[in-house]
Amino acid sequence: MNLSGIIGYPVTPFSQDNKHVAIDKLGHVIDVLLDAKVDAIAALGSAGEAAYLNEAEWKQVAEYTVQHVAGKVPVIIGIAELTTEQAVQYARHAHQTGADMIMLSPFSYFKLSEAEIFQHYETVAGASPLPIMIYNNPATCGVDMSPEFMLKMVDRIPSAIMIKESTGDIQRMHKIYTLSDGNVPFFNGCNHMALEALNAGASGWCTAAPCLIGDKPGQLYDAIKQGESEKAKELFYQQYEFLEFIVSSGLAAAVKSGLALQGTDVGSPRKPLLPLNNQAQQRLRGMLEALA
Amino acid sequence: MNLSGIIGYPVTPFSQDNKHVAIDKLGHVIDVLLDAKVDAIAALGSAGEAAYLNEAEWKQVAEYTVQHVAGKVPVIIGIAELTTEQAVQYARHAHQTGADMIMLSPFSYFKLSEAEIFQHYETVAGASPLPIMIYNNPATCGVDMSPEFMLKMVDRIPSAIMIKESTGDIQRMHKIYTLSDGNVPFFNGCNHMALEALNAGASGWCTAAPCLIGDKPGQLYDAIKQGESEKAKELFYQQYEFLEFIVSSGLAAAVKSGLALQGTDVGSPRKPLLPLNNQAQQRLRGMLEALA
Amino acid sequence: MNLSGIIGYPVTPFSQDNKHVAIDKLGHVIDVLLDAKVDAIAALGSAGEAAYLNEAEWKQVAEYTVQHVAGKVPVIIGIAELTTEQAVQYARHAHQTGADMIMLSPFSYFKLSEAEIFQHYETVAGASPLPIMIYNNPATCGVDMSPEFMLKMVDRIPSAIMIKESTGDIQRMHKIYTLSDGNVPFFNGCNHMALEALNAGASGWCTAAPCLIGDKPGQLYDAIKQGESEKAKELFYQQYEFLEFIVSSGLAAAVKSGLALQGTDVGSPRKPLLPLNNQAQQRLRGMLEALA
Amino acid sequence: MNLSGIIGYPVTPFSQDNKHVAIDKLGHVIDVLLDAKVDAIAALGSAGEAAYLNEAEWKQVAEYTVQHVAGKVPVIIGIAELTTEQAVQYARHAHQTGADMIMLSPFSYFKLSEAEIFQHYETVAGASPLPIMIYNNPATCGVDMSPEFMLKMVDRIPSAIMIKESTGDIQRMHKIYTLSDGNVPFFNGCNHMALEALNAGASGWCTAAPCLIGDKPGQLYDAIKQGESEKAKELFYQQYEFLEFIVSSGLAAAVKSGLALQGTDVGSPRKPLLPLNNQAQQRLRGMLEALA
Repeated sequence: MNLSGIIGYPVTPFSQDNKHVAIDKLGHVIDVLLDAKVDAIAALGSAGEAAYLNEAEWKQVAEYTVQHVAGKVPVIIGIAELTTEQAVQYARHAHQTGADMIMLSPFSYFKLSEAEIFQHYETVAGASPLPIMIYNNPATCGVDMSPEFMLKMVDRIPSAIMIKESTGDIQRMHKIYTLSDGNVPFFNGCNHMALEALNAGASGWCTAAPCLIGDKPGQLYDAIKQGESEKAKELFYQQYEFLEFIVSSGLAAAVKSGLALQGTDVGSPRKPLLPLNNQAQQRLRGMLEALA
Repeated sequence: MNLSGIIGYPVTPFSQDNKHVAIDKLGHVIDVLLDAKVDAIAALGSAGEAAYLNEAEWKQVAEYTVQHVAGKVPVIIGIAELTTEQAVQYARHAHQTGADMIMLSPFSYFKLSEAEIFQHYETVAGASPLPIMIYNNPATCGVDMSPEFMLKMVDRIPSAIMIKESTGDIQRMHKIYTLSDGNVPFFNGCNHMALEALNAGASGWCTAAPCLIGDKPGQLYDAIKQGESEKAKELFYQQYEFLEFIVSSGLAAAVKSGLALQGTDVGSPRKPLLPLNNQAQQRLRGMLEALA
Repeated sequence: MNLSGIIGYPVTPFSQDNKHVAIDKLGHVIDVLLDAKVDAIAALGSAGEAAYLNEAEWKQVAEYTVQHVAGKVPVIIGIAELTTEQAVQYARHAHQTGADMIMLSPFSYFKLSEAEIFQHYETVAGASPLPIMIYNNPATCGVDMSPEFMLKMVDRIPSAIMIKESTGDIQRMHKIYTLSDGNVPFFNGCNHMALEALNAGASGWCTAAPCLIGDKPGQLYDAIKQGESEKAKELFYQQYEFLEFIVSSGLAAAVKSGLALQGTDVGSPRKPLLPLNNQAQQRLRGMLEALA
Repeated sequence: MNLSGIIGYPVTPFSQDNKHVAIDKLGHVIDVLLDAKVDAIAALGSAGEAAYLNEAEWKQVAEYTVQHVAGKVPVIIGIAELTTEQAVQYARHAHQTGADMIMLSPFSYFKLSEAEIFQHYETVAGASPLPIMIYNNPATCGVDMSPEFMLKMVDRIPSAIMIKESTGDIQRMHKIYTLSDGNVPFFNGCNHMALEALNAGASGWCTAAPCLIGDKPGQLYDAIKQGESEKAKELFYQQYEFLEFIVSSGLAAAVKSGLALQGTDVGSPRKPLLPLNNQAQQRLRGMLEALA
């Protein structure tokens, strides 16, 4: 599997009472991403509030996404479960639905040792033939994996073939690049670090931003790949305040508010998550208008 | 509800294949705690691997604990769920089982604002008449609550009446004590800080240690309450290495290994958690022998 | 040398134009400490703004302090220099003045390795026959020393015989106590952690607080040594807000403002340090009145 | 003053006994930097061990540097003093020697408030007509200045016209750029972040690397300015291990060892700083050979 470019992350729409997935509206969100010409779609990531879905909802979103994308671009399924058993079950389901890849992160209550994380990845890898993107996001998952450790997993677990790095520390990417002689693909998962990640050799950028600002992230990616560094810098700084805002406000809340401002009500994030307050909505409105 | 002293935390026994709760063995663990003369029992805490149980298992453990304790001491039920809806459901269930109190913490994937946490507590409080112990444990739950904020919740949510502090920062307890003029009861949740927490005015100590070392924690509590500070210091340093070990090794893994060393096989922690390795088991054996 | 109890830290008075040490006023500050019945006096510590004195001023303060104390209690001289050569020179001078002990900390610009710190202590120890108190205060000195490393220095450098711990982490003291079987004396350097440090086995408390609140710290020390733990808790919480305030406001600024409020103008701290602003002075006035 | 490109940092050679500046060898180090075609020379920075020099040595280095550079490129003088008075004196001296600019950072023992830092900069700015580069390096100086605060100083202190950022957090540079609409020049002070700093709009790179690897940093700068992003990435990764090494080993120690390996003995860093140990020297030798 040869993946690069923009990987788009849909949010998961909910009903007005916050109790059910509004599955038809998910189709609209996916269409927005496809219109933005993303290179792949990753369901059930952070932005998709996967951690807040029950099992039936989770499977429904996975299945619907694969069907709706219908092969136009590859579909990646995020798995971040507390138990290895649940992660195994979801990995099998992802394969059954016809997804193309798994993005696997070690969500934790107790801190996990490297031996525990390794066993988790190895077991999940053994449960499905899908390739695995190792996903490091300590801010949400509570576990941090070093570049050295992730590369060890790439080396020893055949289906673990790429890395998504979301710590926001550019040095991690330098380490991945140098320690692997540039041979292990890595993706940027920190929106407001996209410029430097791509300049440092990232294969692409995992982002929910195209839900709201269309192909602007794709334009940035293209400018860098074509060596137009001044244009890339301009495009990045145009989007910078917005990118930082959606991260610091919470991706799901920010993207859902933005979609509502653009005319599509996809409901609120699931409680205890709250929608943006009025002031934050006004800021977002201003940024979206400036980027339109 | 007037709670003080040692609150004992049972681990949750699993079957050999790690797939089911071994409910009969839970009775044995509870009996060990009752023999250690704990002043209350808290099921489904960190040590109880609540985060790794599915809904049916969770409810089974809650029900069994209340029945088995049978009123000998109060029963507290820990709730640390990602969604408010699930926490509400568990709070109702805890009340239905006949438990005496809820220990509520805000487990998170996305970081939560104080507004989000407040709403979570208020909603759960509204779902059951049980008193609530506010539980702050950022290392496992991913959310940190300041003394000021927790006292605000005590002030505004009538059933939120006490605090369990597990950051390991003794200054938090000084703040709770001084800001509330000593009027809001707080409990120590950091095993290897028990001496200073109790000296600083903590009403008690929440701990899984009595699963393995009987009434040693209770002796420390009594020494402090009786003003025997030199004896308290001695008792604390006797237990210190052990207390630090079970925290740094992972409570569930350490207590389960210790129970096995003492003759009761309660299975392994649930994967991805691993049991203690051989070297750690040897260290634990030595410490338990020294404390026997 | 058998040291225990309260070690009092004088501030260094300056002239109105901030340019000179007002040496006669230093005598008053020392007298305040002696009236408070401190068990030793430590000149040229953090509170004494040693880092902001030139060499002539530094030596003047050392000499004057030894003369003025005149053997009533032991005198400790703080040394925190960037170069080993300067620290050696000051250690020799401290001995020549007739001081009783050196308190040595590794002030740094570049981070120092343990090899570098060890060499620094060993060289300074070789330059004077005075006993050395190893002082760990990473917040001001930029270097953190683990309990294990400090105990190694106590083991290998004959004149390094005690430790002052100022990280504010009570676990450091537990480690010093357990790793040395209670045989290496340690002192508390974190004012608002005095209660737990003394309960955990500290030999004493290094503090500038007696400059303003007389023997209150000494009363706390006595209560703990006499096993009056409830009284100790009360005394501690009486002083708590004040103790935290002088640390968070900057010791030199806070103590100098307090002395002015009590009728002795000792000038401002040396720039860039600023005196307390009006609001902070009002808070301090209130706290001092409540403690009078 | 319109500064951009590579600002080279000489180390300060010492005599064999570590007691004196070997001033003639400083000429050689400066010549190495001029041969590397640096765009400016900054004396008395971190690499120059300014913090470890006495006043006479400091002034000697400043004077010699200005004379030896002799107008070929601008000369910047670093000032990082604990007292405002000493910084003022050095600022006057820098002007008298004929230097072109001051690089000013707030070295601290006690943490400084923004009011204290502002007053420090304002006072030093008033003492000399030289333009000031605000230098933020919390790892060595113990004080962190936010982009917002530094821009406030640029706004209110006329001679404070540019910023050197050394936290290693690329987001700081994004903030400086966006908050100033790209109008306040900033320089990179974190060697192993040079690629992203320059891509993010930095005017240049402050580095001691040209002491050892000639115009390699300059080639990287040129590649980025000419929009050759793929070449820039290659040049950066060629130097990356070396750049990270000299930072993590201590700039003065690493550069001095490297110069010795290349045939020029400039002595050891000043104690307590130690030279590289054998193993580190071997690593450095390998890296220098690969880059030659």
